Amino acid sequence: MKIGLDMMGGDFAPKATVLGAIEAYKVLSAEQKLVLIGDKDATVNILQENNFSPDHFEFVHTTEVIGMGEHPTKAIVQKPNSSISVGFNLLKEGNIQAFSSAGNTGAMLVGAMFSVKTIPGVMRPAMTTIVPKLKGGLGILLDVGANADCKADVLLQFGVLGSLLAESVYGITNPRVALMNIGEEEEKGNLLCQAAYPLMKNTPLFNFVGNIEGRDLFEDNHDVTVCDGFTGNVILKMAESFYVITLKKRFKDEFFERFNYEQYGGSPILGVNAPVVVGHGISSPEAIKNMILLSKDMIETSLIDKIKQAFQ
Amino acid sequence: MKIGLDMMGGDFAPKATVLGAIEAYKVLSAEQKLVLIGDKDATVNILQENNFSPDHFEFVHTTEVIGMGEHPTKAIVQKPNSSISVGFNLLKEGNIQAFSSAGNTGAMLVGAMFSVKTIPGVMRPAMTTIVPKLKGGLGILLDVGANADCKADVLLQFGVLGSLLAESVYGITNPRVALMNIGEEEEKGNLLCQAAYPLMKNTPLFNFVGNIEGRDLFEDNHDVTVCDGFTGNVILKMAESFYVITLKKRFKDEFFERFNYEQYGGSPILGVNAPVVVGHGISSPEAIKNMILLSKDMIETSLIDKIKQAFQ
Repeated sequence: MKIGLDMMGGDFAPKATVLGAIEAYKVLSAEQKLVLIGDKDATVNILQENNFSPDHFEFVHTTEVIGMGEHPTKAIVQKPNSSISVGFNLLKEGNIQAFSSAGNTGAMLVGAMFSVKTIPGVMRPAMTTIVPKLKGGLGILLDVGANADCKADVLLQFGVLGSLLAESVYGITNPRVALMNIGEEEEKGNLLCQAAYPLMKNTPLFNFVGNIEGRDLFEDNHDVTVCDGFTGNVILKMAESFYVITLKKRFKDEFFERFNYEQYGGSPILGVNAPVVVGHGISSPEAIKNMILLSKDMIETSLIDKIKQAFQ
Repeated sequence: MKIGLDMMGGDFAPKATVLGAIEAYKVLSAEQKLVLIGDKDATVNILQENNFSPDHFEFVHTTEVIGMGEHPTKAIVQKPNSSISVGFNLLKEGNIQAFSSAGNTGAMLVGAMFSVKTIPGVMRPAMTTIVPKLKGGLGILLDVGANADCKADVLLQFGVLGSLLAESVYGITNPRVALMNIGEEEEKGNLLCQAAYPLMKNTPLFNFVGNIEGRDLFEDNHDVTVCDGFTGNVILKMAESFYVITLKKRFKDEFFERFNYEQYGGSPILGVNAPVVVGHGISSPEAIKNMILLSKDMIETSLIDKIKQAFQ
């Protein structure tokens, strides 16, 4: 197994990515090989500064970097030698089995769709995030920003994608899928939810448990929350701001500690033909390590094959 | 000035509404008269139990009650003798200058639109809520649920309504109006936001400061947050859930204390031809008192006239 990592992605790259790769190496098995994609000299220098042998890794040297603020489609096209573009080429050619980056989210999304491409039958790939539950454990929220506007059948598919992720990678049996809405009853909500509800209610593809509301996100009445990417992104950023507020106010609590993105590593892009994970721009070495381990879990659990089967 | 109060609205009515009316009476002036609309015997009994003279109030006896779970339009039509229906008739006839209730939100919205009607030029009335700011003070969020689906020109109008409320009732000079979105740049967002941004940028009707994201809601970079009612309702309920979590976890903090809905009394319905306020279903006497005072402030500041002028 070869796991690709973008060394140039994230606000603290390449230092944080190198340190994260070292930490991941320590817990990976011998046959789980990390492929470090980026400026080789810079990467090797940081490894040596940390007295860590470069021989533990494979390297693919790249000469360009896609910045955090760059336009995704333009950057992917105009920078073929960037770490993200090269990473996706390696993934497409099968030289690595997963690719992750804490860099430009849009470029990762566009790169995934241009290179390994969307799984046949999947209308729109989705980005996911982890939601800590008040009673312990976690849930999945999707989409969190890949698709600002969605149609009802796309939300139905998000239910399938989220359910498979929850079951395969997070070990949640028969995940309960809920629709984020503004009322409990079937007829409530905007036109999108009104159209999505009957599709989700009647599908044999997952275990639909009905509507939830904003107040239910952290409750144990569901495992997977489905919404359009606009709503999901607002929810995600609002939840992050609450976490930051509790940190600033020095509230110590086990529940709020589980908001820390570092533990989860990043957001899988679901619905493309290979494991792809996008990390938070501010990723620390710990976050990078967990991003690598998440992409490894996606390989090991054959999540992509399961998604392909579901959409056959 | 006559201020109408629905005595039958809310989970703890009529006890909480009577006690709230008593507390409001203590701070109102002699010419600010409360009109108690509901079961007169029950109301008078509770007043007497509290050694408070019924002579301080006017009464309008009603014989029906619209329950919290009833279908709004059906209930308004089928229960003409309900406290909400009678209250809106009094408001329409000019016998009271404001009407507030902690009862069925949908019935309040439908009742307002059927009786005093939407202000000419206003496409869709909106419901608002107060947002506490981290640095102190407060902001306005709208719409929080009256309109699950909105068009861009409706969002533009919400900017006008929110700006006038912030300035008139909450004394915020030249309120900064922001569009809730999923990116800072003009071109970001769903189709609705992409269409609303240029309208808001080019309007002379309020002080537009651009897009904000979910993480900015409690920040001091804007005073009024505009969004569709679906997004606003999800935000509102998520914020409430955070407040409840901090309460349960016994986090004591001035900022979180300002989430307490009791202080704000209720949500004005903006865009109808009279001051109408809807309280939280679980309203306590303190919340009822503040709902009455909010409706009084809406009368005193001539908010409705200002809205009418803006839409002339």
